Amino acid sequence: MYRSHTNGALRIEHVNQEVTLSGWVQKSRDKGFMIWVDLRDRYGITQLIFDEERTEAAVIEKAKTLGREFVIQIKGKVIEREAKNKNIPTGDIEILVNELEILNEANLPPFTIEDETDGGEDIRMKYRYLDIRRNPVKNNLIFRSKVTQEVRNYLSNQDFIEVETPYLIKSTPEGARDFIVPSRMNQGEFYALPQSPQTFKQLLMVGGMDKYFQIVKCFRDEDLRADRQPEFTQIDCELAFVEQEDILGIFEGMTRHLLQKVNNVEIGDFPRMTFEHAMKTYGNDKPDIRFGMEFGELNSVAQQKDFKVFNDAELVVGIAVPGAASYTRKEIDKLISWVKRPQVGALGMVYVKCNEDGTFKSSVDKFYNQEDLAAWAKATGAKAGDLICVLSGPANKTRAQLSALRMELAERLDLRKANEFAPLWVIDFPLLEWDEETERYHAMHHPFTSPKLEDIALLDTDPGKVRANAYDLVLNGNEIGGGSIRIHDKETQSLMFKHLGFTPEEAKEQFGFLMNAFEYGAPPHGGLAFGLDRLVAILGGQETIRDFIAFPKNNSGRDVMINAPAPVTEAVLSEVNINITTPKE
Amino acid sequence: MYRSHTNGALRIEHVNQEVTLSGWVQKSRDKGFMIWVDLRDRYGITQLIFDEERTEAAVIEKAKTLGREFVIQIKGKVIEREAKNKNIPTGDIEILVNELEILNEANLPPFTIEDETDGGEDIRMKYRYLDIRRNPVKNNLIFRSKVTQEVRNYLSNQDFIEVETPYLIKSTPEGARDFIVPSRMNQGEFYALPQSPQTFKQLLMVGGMDKYFQIVKCFRDEDLRADRQPEFTQIDCELAFVEQEDILGIFEGMTRHLLQKVNNVEIGDFPRMTFEHAMKTYGNDKPDIRFGMEFGELNSVAQQKDFKVFNDAELVVGIAVPGAASYTRKEIDKLISWVKRPQVGALGMVYVKCNEDGTFKSSVDKFYNQEDLAAWAKATGAKAGDLICVLSGPANKTRAQLSALRMELAERLDLRKANEFAPLWVIDFPLLEWDEETERYHAMHHPFTSPKLEDIALLDTDPGKVRANAYDLVLNGNEIGGGSIRIHDKETQSLMFKHLGFTPEEAKEQFGFLMNAFEYGAPPHGGLAFGLDRLVAILGGQETIRDFIAFPKNNSGRDVMINAPAPVTEAVLSEVNINITTPKE
Repeated sequence: MYRSHTNGALRIEHVNQEVTLSGWVQKSRDKGFMIWVDLRDRYGITQLIFDEERTEAAVIEKAKTLGREFVIQIKGKVIEREAKNKNIPTGDIEILVNELEILNEANLPPFTIEDETDGGEDIRMKYRYLDIRRNPVKNNLIFRSKVTQEVRNYLSNQDFIEVETPYLIKSTPEGARDFIVPSRMNQGEFYALPQSPQTFKQLLMVGGMDKYFQIVKCFRDEDLRADRQPEFTQIDCELAFVEQEDILGIFEGMTRHLLQKVNNVEIGDFPRMTFEHAMKTYGNDKPDIRFGMEFGELNSVAQQKDFKVFNDAELVVGIAVPGAASYTRKEIDKLISWVKRPQVGALGMVYVKCNEDGTFKSSVDKFYNQEDLAAWAKATGAKAGDLICVLSGPANKTRAQLSALRMELAERLDLRKANEFAPLWVIDFPLLEWDEETERYHAMHHPFTSPKLEDIALLDTDPGKVRANAYDLVLNGNEIGGGSIRIHDKETQSLMFKHLGFTPEEAKEQFGFLMNAFEYGAPPHGGLAFGLDRLVAILGGQETIRDFIAFPKNNSGRDVMINAPAPVTEAVLSEVNINITTPKE
Repeated sequence: MYRSHTNGALRIEHVNQEVTLSGWVQKSRDKGFMIWVDLRDRYGITQLIFDEERTEAAVIEKAKTLGREFVIQIKGKVIEREAKNKNIPTGDIEILVNELEILNEANLPPFTIEDETDGGEDIRMKYRYLDIRRNPVKNNLIFRSKVTQEVRNYLSNQDFIEVETPYLIKSTPEGARDFIVPSRMNQGEFYALPQSPQTFKQLLMVGGMDKYFQIVKCFRDEDLRADRQPEFTQIDCELAFVEQEDILGIFEGMTRHLLQKVNNVEIGDFPRMTFEHAMKTYGNDKPDIRFGMEFGELNSVAQQKDFKVFNDAELVVGIAVPGAASYTRKEIDKLISWVKRPQVGALGMVYVKCNEDGTFKSSVDKFYNQEDLAAWAKATGAKAGDLICVLSGPANKTRAQLSALRMELAERLDLRKANEFAPLWVIDFPLLEWDEETERYHAMHHPFTSPKLEDIALLDTDPGKVRANAYDLVLNGNEIGGGSIRIHDKETQSLMFKHLGFTPEEAKEQFGFLMNAFEYGAPPHGGLAFGLDRLVAILGGQETIRDFIAFPKNNSGRDVMINAPAPVTEAVLSEVNINITTPKE
């Protein structure tokens, strides 16, 4: 038996017990006549003491050889510490060691195994197995495990069945790029790894499973933006005989359950916001509503004067930045530079300081008088002491720019509190979105998303205005889940395919087996999927998903620890009948 | 709202309530003045009644158009049935319908959606989404979901952390064939899909995770024998600071928990059997111990006479088949033909009838007298009325043949009761096994399995005799789990690699990152993995894993429902820089 207790278990009431402990040497302090060692495992740290007067000389000698991260086993007696450490649960006691065995030696780690390490991202990823020993990473993984267990508990209690869908499926040309897998037994043919179990979960509804969920890996061969992973995990759900309201209710409940169980936070009813409102008020379909700075549209109060820039703009829109009237000229110039960065792309920014004395000072005083600016303050909700930031230009672009500015300012003003949670539903998404490149409409969600009945007539006259029964769950400015009610009848589905520019043959070719299944009694159904990596990160008060994945890949899709992907032998390639081609220049 | 209740919910106490139900038309009986419809969903069946006297004519007319598997919604009143059906929970009531909406029509299904269907395997797999509507398949999937949830509950309560390991990893030449995935971003390089998370779970132990589990898909590109799947699910576990005894205890507990929770069966301590004993007594390392027919070795009592076949044999071994002395000559001839089939491969079979009067009648009476045969009966434990079946030849082969015969007879005698559970641990597996083809020893489990300390000296003198700290959990004649204590120190690992014929360079090339990790303080660790598909099938009283997988593949690795694998376009291939080669003749 390697241990009688873990290193997080012993308390003052264990004093005088003989115990056996195992773990890693966190650190060791050699005072000559006494050696203290912090022994660490997943559960905590226990202090060991080797004392010249009470410990055998041979044991002391061995203790002197211990390096950081050595794996040891000790036997000894629990004693009360003279100097207690209130910062750790085992801080009242220490172990007077009488036996010491070195279970494994350790090379000096390439970075310190401490909460605040001296290791950079690259080296920590290469030695991820050492990085995981650090509390922040370890605790994130434990947190993730707890979240998934709570998801399962909640959904199981709601009669959901977890069904595993296949990973070796079929490539479809819609959507993102698939990872493909050559088949050896079916020469010249390929599996694809699933981008999501979408069609399978719909088939499970046709199959009468009624309430399905799965926590499942999905795969997308995309050029990785920061904090995207080629493999990611989804909480995938689908329900039959439901309307949008049923689904929102169940998953609002799930999110509330998680906040309660893992964050100890009670949240009431989630607010709901239409896509249109979200775009107008926050310039964004996933608004962070932990703070205000809602958009004030200024066209009616800013386009009556001689300021050509505003007069020519489709939209003039501003936000009131709380307490920022005190910004210096230099600080404001910095903000202006920030919105002009290519990533944001604004041409400039107009500002108005709302002075404490009720007067205004703006960068466009030449064109606008105090009364004009008071109207701006009213439209943006600015109070004395605030700074109004105003952008103008084409409506969609300008909203996106102002949204970026709003988020940036919230960061700077520390308004995005990690331990504050503000979920909301964004509903009534457009069914279709115009694709400039192909000059046709694409399904915003996917081709099986059902349009709102009352909007169907618009498909012929103004397709971009058709709203879908589609919804996103947004938490702290991140989309953590999204879904829709699906089309389950042939007529609507044909109509959709027509408007998406599919011929019946193309539709059959690409979605044949699902279309076929729909001929045999498909129930009304709908669902949604949560991005687990992101959900866990946000519940954990962070936004970097990589920190909540045990073995993440870097931005080139590479696992630098195991060095994958990697070349394979000719023999392996020949078994699956493929060749590597020379890349085109 | 599509329903106020499911079709399994209504009881006599709901009489007079107005309800809304949705579901599929299971069947409909039209008596002219009355129509009864069985409405089905996942939860049960509720009988609907349309009655000329009490239902509107238009509703009746619509009801007459209903076909099997139509999806409908009805509103009506719960009434007490005149003729109650004690076979279903809703059998006391029926619904007098006053509104009927057809939510979706259905083509005639290609097979009947009944417990006993008229559809063959192929058609049911092609229309798996309809097959899933049938109770036996549906219940298997629900059962599987319950098993996995109970596994998670048990392990979470034991402080295990579920950690997701990556699916896009690196191909290794050891073990079975990998599925490979070409990388687009890293041209000419490939990921491999994991055959198991073995190295990652060991790295998690190096990382201090202490107790890890994961229910995870694994992939093996093997030629599929019956009832093997290219993708399968594993309950994968690993623990640090444990000895074999700790692991057996925890997973015996898990199996007992499952039997209790999902089968309502209480099982005491699991028997343990060495590999050597299992092979000698059952000819098999996964013996079904729900029944006897243990092997009796007959060399000492059968090789003293003139029967050359036995005298020349390395092993003469028999089993006593209970009650089979009454078999006719024809039946026995059939048995002899059975053991001579190429799949079994025996050259013949000697038999002894143990008559009720205490005499014996054998096929070798010419060579053996009554006293000889009595000794055989004693060695095999045969009683009056039994039939002794005896095979002879090279020891290993003969044991395997007799094991096959023993299982076949158990099937015929109905000794393999689906609702009886007989788990056992098989322990002390050999560390190495001789591979005839490459003429060297291979790791029986994998190269990180630790040898028993007391056997290490044998590595140099008699490697085949070295026992490993490896164990299998066997249930009803199936290996449902297996694992080992791993090597965690450099010296033993080097010794192992040497004996497996790896040069240090080869070892580094193939297992470099794990070997490297072991330099930084690897704790003693071990683990095991359960085959979830098989475990669920056996707990479900069946042995065909395909019946417990929602969307299984056939023996050519093909999903006949979605028709995968499939060709992909040139454009897709060119993105990942591969070509299809012409297969070699």
